[in-house]
Amino acid sequence: MGTITLLTDFGHRDNYVGVMKGVIAGISPQSQLIDITHAIKSQDILAARFNLLTSYGYFPAGTIHIVIVDPGVGTQRSAIAAQIATSVGVHTVIAPDNGIITGLPVTAAVALTNQDYWRTPHASHTFHGRDIFAPAAAHLARGISFGQLGVSLSVSNLVGLDIDDVAKTNQGYCGCIQYSDHFGNLVTNIPGARLSNQTWHIYLGKHCIPNCTTYGLTEVGSALALVGSHGYVEIAVNGGNAAEILNGDVGDSVELSYALHGLGRGAL
Amino acid sequence: MGTITLLTDFGHRDNYVGVMKGVIAGISPQSQLIDITHAIKSQDILAARFNLLTSYGYFPAGTIHIVIVDPGVGTQRSAIAAQIATSVGVHTVIAPDNGIITGLPVTAAVALTNQDYWRTPHASHTFHGRDIFAPAAAHLARGISFGQLGVSLSVSNLVGLDIDDVAKTNQGYCGCIQYSDHFGNLVTNIPGARLSNQTWHIYLGKHCIPNCTTYGLTEVGSALALVGSHGYVEIAVNGGNAAEILNGDVGDSVELSYALHGLGRGAL
Amino acid sequence: MGTITLLTDFGHRDNYVGVMKGVIAGISPQSQLIDITHAIKSQDILAARFNLLTSYGYFPAGTIHIVIVDPGVGTQRSAIAAQIATSVGVHTVIAPDNGIITGLPVTAAVALTNQDYWRTPHASHTFHGRDIFAPAAAHLARGISFGQLGVSLSVSNLVGLDIDDVAKTNQGYCGCIQYSDHFGNLVTNIPGARLSNQTWHIYLGKHCIPNCTTYGLTEVGSALALVGSHGYVEIAVNGGNAAEILNGDVGDSVELSYALHGLGRGAL
Repeated sequence: MGTITLLTDFGHRDNYVGVMKGVIAGISPQSQLIDITHAIKSQDILAARFNLLTSYGYFPAGTIHIVIVDPGVGTQRSAIAAQIATSVGVHTVIAPDNGIITGLPVTAAVALTNQDYWRTPHASHTFHGRDIFAPAAAHLARGISFGQLGVSLSVSNLVGLDIDDVAKTNQGYCGCIQYSDHFGNLVTNIPGARLSNQTWHIYLGKHCIPNCTTYGLTEVGSALALVGSHGYVEIAVNGGNAAEILNGDVGDSVELSYALHGLGRGAL
Repeated sequence: MGTITLLTDFGHRDNYVGVMKGVIAGISPQSQLIDITHAIKSQDILAARFNLLTSYGYFPAGTIHIVIVDPGVGTQRSAIAAQIATSVGVHTVIAPDNGIITGLPVTAAVALTNQDYWRTPHASHTFHGRDIFAPAAAHLARGISFGQLGVSLSVSNLVGLDIDDVAKTNQGYCGCIQYSDHFGNLVTNIPGARLSNQTWHIYLGKHCIPNCTTYGLTEVGSALALVGSHGYVEIAVNGGNAAEILNGDVGDSVELSYALHGLGRGAL
Repeated sequence: MGTITLLTDFGHRDNYVGVMKGVIAGISPQSQLIDITHAIKSQDILAARFNLLTSYGYFPAGTIHIVIVDPGVGTQRSAIAAQIATSVGVHTVIAPDNGIITGLPVTAAVALTNQDYWRTPHASHTFHGRDIFAPAAAHLARGISFGQLGVSLSVSNLVGLDIDDVAKTNQGYCGCIQYSDHFGNLVTNIPGARLSNQTWHIYLGKHCIPNCTTYGLTEVGSALALVGSHGYVEIAVNGGNAAEILNGDVGDSVELSYALHGLGRGAL
């Protein structure tokens, strides 16, 4: 029966997530339900995408991920299921077609058009999580085939987000902050896998931040940069909140350099 | 072994909810535990009732709902179990007798007086969730009969809340805001099922808000009113927080009308 | 397969907790996962210890507790597993060796040095929860022996915190506030089990607070002191937030007395 994960911007105050789990429990009572997060900022598709992108690889083969940040609920946007290839086998993502899966290794997609696997043919206009996404995931977990969920879609026609890219420079890479986590750590979009073994540091605004392998190896209150557990270069402050202390936010430019710049830029 | 849900005002900071689940796991390890919410405002019985009322119907037959917002814990208020009829079979609610189940279709009730199904006969004065409610739910899930939980109560003697009613007017309905959700959507107490197919709009304070079938069909930043997924008329702002933007709150009066009022009332 | 609990300062905004659960689901899919809390204030080891200390006893025999508040992740601090004796059998705590289990009845300990039970031999420097703690717990739940996790440690060599002690005075006890919960209740470090049957009251700053058996038995807005459900003397305000109203916080001294002090100290 496998694992079904849930990732939404529904928050923890209302019964929306509980209701979706109730619908799943009625269809596939043996499935294990795991919350990724429900605290995505309202309608922040990019943050939802980041949380999915950096978590799905840790789940077992066959996991089904329900991902709902859905400003377009009830409009013409499609509801889809997408198969993605992982190192441990195929997963399925069930989501609105709004770019939330941009950059994932999608191998097949269907629109959730088969109303046999909706909760009711009279789906609400505002809560497709309950009426379409959750039942689709539960029926899939219970054993229907992927293709039974609805009409096949061309993967190349799925909505894609315009994701900021990382540029190679003479001295390293130019990128940006793509996520700010609960601890205030600032996650850039520079993949650690691209870095060589040379010493590097990173510029954020007026701050020049040295590389260090882990938080506890710098003085408390000092900024450091490292390849975070998600695989991206991350800026942190040991024992502190980097977003607040360095005044950094999602979208800010960063510059990673193997060479120290001139004295014109102030150190932290 | 079935599903046990939990709905409380215990929050997510302390171990209260975890402890209740530990007690259940020790008695009925096969039960599936689903959180409805633990973020009810401290002692807000009305909000707890709204969240129960609009979620229980989505759970499978046999579900047991533990609902604890309990300002009177340790006083003479009763701890009860109530059977409720749903379209998918009987559910049980386990709760303090303080009106939290007002309006639910209760068919039978018992007081949780049988100490064999308490965690210990020496129940604490302050945490009946751990000592009485959770073990009662777990024993019921594990197979004891409803009647074994304690002495039978007359359903008509259960504590009832004085819930604001909806009044029919010449031009539609008068009601009030009964709940404000995480997104800032303002949920009225006017059931969508009572509405005819005529065009309608709703007045909240000085705002006149038009009906629209879903959020994404109005301009970003515009207010709209619709029948929400819970079945009640709801006031929202597309891409925004209606409670903040319209300065609305629980208890505020609303007036739904099939006819546009005179010019004396300003549009949004 | 049993129960695995999780207690961290990871918060609910990111995917850290979900990722740990994904890793566990891949190794021990039958384990039941129960969250104690993830809302420990960043790096607050004392609050994590309090939440563990007052919850583990309610879980069934064999429960494995993953407890991660880990300012020293990636440094030389050890990752450990510790067996603890409970009234219902042996539990295991899996945690960094930073004092988080101070005061628990530890009977055996190992360092998590056996990389066969890590997620990968190349553990990250920043997320041992995912790479070391979660897989260790899952492998243990699935059936390896405690000793297979790594080299044995002397229990007396584990890191211990300097926990504030309770002092006997002529008229009662001197102690301090050790925890402030979600409701604003102030939990002292004075064990209720030490109190005699005499009437008592407690001083916090300029406030003299009478003992009462439960919240609902005092007037709304009045302060009271009682032995809380966790077993410690606790200061509360009926229907209010004691931490705010009495201006109390963790670390503040309290004095419990069986005799009323002179008139020099003002009543509430």
